[in-house]
Amino acid sequence: MKKQYLLTPGPTPIPPEVALKEALPILHHRTNEFAAIYKDVAEGLQYVFQTKNEVYTIAGSGTAAMEAAVVNVVSAGDKVIVASCGNFGDRWVKIAQSYGANVVQASVPWGNVVKPAEIEKALKENPDAKAVYTTFTETSTGVVNDIKAIGEIVSKTDAVFIVDAVSGLVGQEFKTDDWNVDIAVSGSQKGLMLAPGLSFITLSEKAWKAVENSKAPKFYLDIKKYKKSYATNETPFTPPVTLIVSLQESLKVIKEKGLENLWSEYKLLAKAARAGMKALGLELFGEIPCEVVTSAKAPEGIGGKIVKTLREKYGVSIAGGQGDLKGKIIRFAHMGFIGKADLLVGFACLEMVLTELGVQIEKGKGVAAAEEALLNG
Amino acid sequence: MKKQYLLTPGPTPIPPEVALKEALPILHHRTNEFAAIYKDVAEGLQYVFQTKNEVYTIAGSGTAAMEAAVVNVVSAGDKVIVASCGNFGDRWVKIAQSYGANVVQASVPWGNVVKPAEIEKALKENPDAKAVYTTFTETSTGVVNDIKAIGEIVSKTDAVFIVDAVSGLVGQEFKTDDWNVDIAVSGSQKGLMLAPGLSFITLSEKAWKAVENSKAPKFYLDIKKYKKSYATNETPFTPPVTLIVSLQESLKVIKEKGLENLWSEYKLLAKAARAGMKALGLELFGEIPCEVVTSAKAPEGIGGKIVKTLREKYGVSIAGGQGDLKGKIIRFAHMGFIGKADLLVGFACLEMVLTELGVQIEKGKGVAAAEEALLNG
Repeated sequence: MKKQYLLTPGPTPIPPEVALKEALPILHHRTNEFAAIYKDVAEGLQYVFQTKNEVYTIAGSGTAAMEAAVVNVVSAGDKVIVASCGNFGDRWVKIAQSYGANVVQASVPWGNVVKPAEIEKALKENPDAKAVYTTFTETSTGVVNDIKAIGEIVSKTDAVFIVDAVSGLVGQEFKTDDWNVDIAVSGSQKGLMLAPGLSFITLSEKAWKAVENSKAPKFYLDIKKYKKSYATNETPFTPPVTLIVSLQESLKVIKEKGLENLWSEYKLLAKAARAGMKALGLELFGEIPCEVVTSAKAPEGIGGKIVKTLREKYGVSIAGGQGDLKGKIIRFAHMGFIGKADLLVGFACLEMVLTELGVQIEKGKGVAAAEEALLNG
Repeated sequence: MKKQYLLTPGPTPIPPEVALKEALPILHHRTNEFAAIYKDVAEGLQYVFQTKNEVYTIAGSGTAAMEAAVVNVVSAGDKVIVASCGNFGDRWVKIAQSYGANVVQASVPWGNVVKPAEIEKALKENPDAKAVYTTFTETSTGVVNDIKAIGEIVSKTDAVFIVDAVSGLVGQEFKTDDWNVDIAVSGSQKGLMLAPGLSFITLSEKAWKAVENSKAPKFYLDIKKYKKSYATNETPFTPPVTLIVSLQESLKVIKEKGLENLWSEYKLLAKAARAGMKALGLELFGEIPCEVVTSAKAPEGIGGKIVKTLREKYGVSIAGGQGDLKGKIIRFAHMGFIGKADLLVGFACLEMVLTELGVQIEKGKGVAAAEEALLNG
């Protein structure tokens, strides 16, 4: 009997009507019934990715789709540019290097955002680069990169532009086709308001040309297998049917609400979260904050304790820092099925925890500032 | 409003108490609560695999765990022996070849079982073989291989013995450690009575030595990452938390019932299924039938129609043949959460469908023979 409040950047809370679909009896995946669901899901995914291209569903964590975006594009020895600004950007480096790619880094220190001009420079210096990899919203630090600007630059070259939109999709404006993103990947447990276990990938015509030339070894993540099965509304391997049935429901929820409306709501939550942090004297972290998670510097030495106490004493899960930022920042997520009141729960409990840990704050001030922002829109 | 009856070799029906767990609110995966569940699940998996070694959970279809059993063991150019007797055995060949392995086949025609003596011969002729891959229950044809005998042979060599136990685990006696299996893989949607989306792998000490020498590129399926996280009851990537929470419940169901009792029950169901088929004049297919699926030859030209009509008219899902066996056999599965009555539903509807398709049978005869077998134990 411990009530839980999830304010983490994945997994996120999911609507009860979506959760209940997971409990329905198992459907066989080679039936007309399942094919109809899969087709509906595929169309819904095209809407959330804002793409006319096919979106494939892979059973696995978001990292599986990231790896698919490497093994289907590169060959050992290929040059690729990675523009990382945090833990998830660094994952592109690790995956690409695992497959023998020659990685040119156009990365920036954690907390900063990727500089489009640096990517332009890297592309000029490396005209043989096969691909540019970056991250949309980098949740490890809480920043957002200008994918539109980078997409415009990469589109003028032969390189394929590949974006990790795992945490940002649905939570913040993202337009795969309009922004010249050749490959976008995402996962189920963030903005899509679903349990973890599914990952997604979509490829442009330009990306498919790179796929034809890729020689990296692959089987489970061979995207051609997914494309072939997609034509008959199937998956190449047994799909997680219960997750896909509940995905159909969450996509319905998203479509009914409208992507633009969701973007506005998360934007407002982000504004309120930033106001709350500032009112409590917590300095915001990150060059350009994203709209799905808010990072702030923790008072010296107690970053880990804040996260632990919030969870153990009040059932409120937020995230701490990763890598070098461990213990140094706290991260409040506002993605997935989350409302204004959830954010206020987070701030109220944060105020109690800060007080308990001996930080001098004025109780109620963070909540008040967040309320003010929410009221003023 | 169409009632469905699932008699397919995966996904299989799951107990309602297991299904309902999937609908519980999302737990964060980096918490003490989740770690306790993961630990419990890991112990339950050791029980079902009958192993003292660690069992790792990978988010993905069963094929993901199969690929993990290749990329963590072989390097390009390595010689491996594959003993296939069907579609899933052939998958070992495809995966191994995708990673540049030099595959020596000790395979037999579909419907036959792998011959231990052939493997002994192949090992003698290829003393440099790094691994022997085979399948426990080959559901594409309905046979079971003598893993114990093969394990004894391979254990006397330097090769690692790797078994696909995706469909047979829990459904038929399988003992990883006692049978000298170095790597066993499985999936969630068969005997484990769970939705698809999880796959499992366990490795012996001998297998770990091969892992140290493997140079195949990998990231998501890098088993060392799973071993490292396992030490703190975690997974390297966000796990499908709802599936793992429901896995805890299905493992509880299995432990309460007892593996030996489950093996006996499926054995009886298999006996009844074979009796039913024979009574309807359908010749059994496969050299040594397994206990999780029963295959029979379909009357000339109507194999596909039987499967389609059963599904569309009566909501009964069974499986047809794959590959060259397409349209030639029908397969009744008795794995997962399935009772005696489910099997009788299958035979009753099969009798109606055969009659509708013009096959001369005596209605009730298949059901009667199955009842007889079930009553006599």
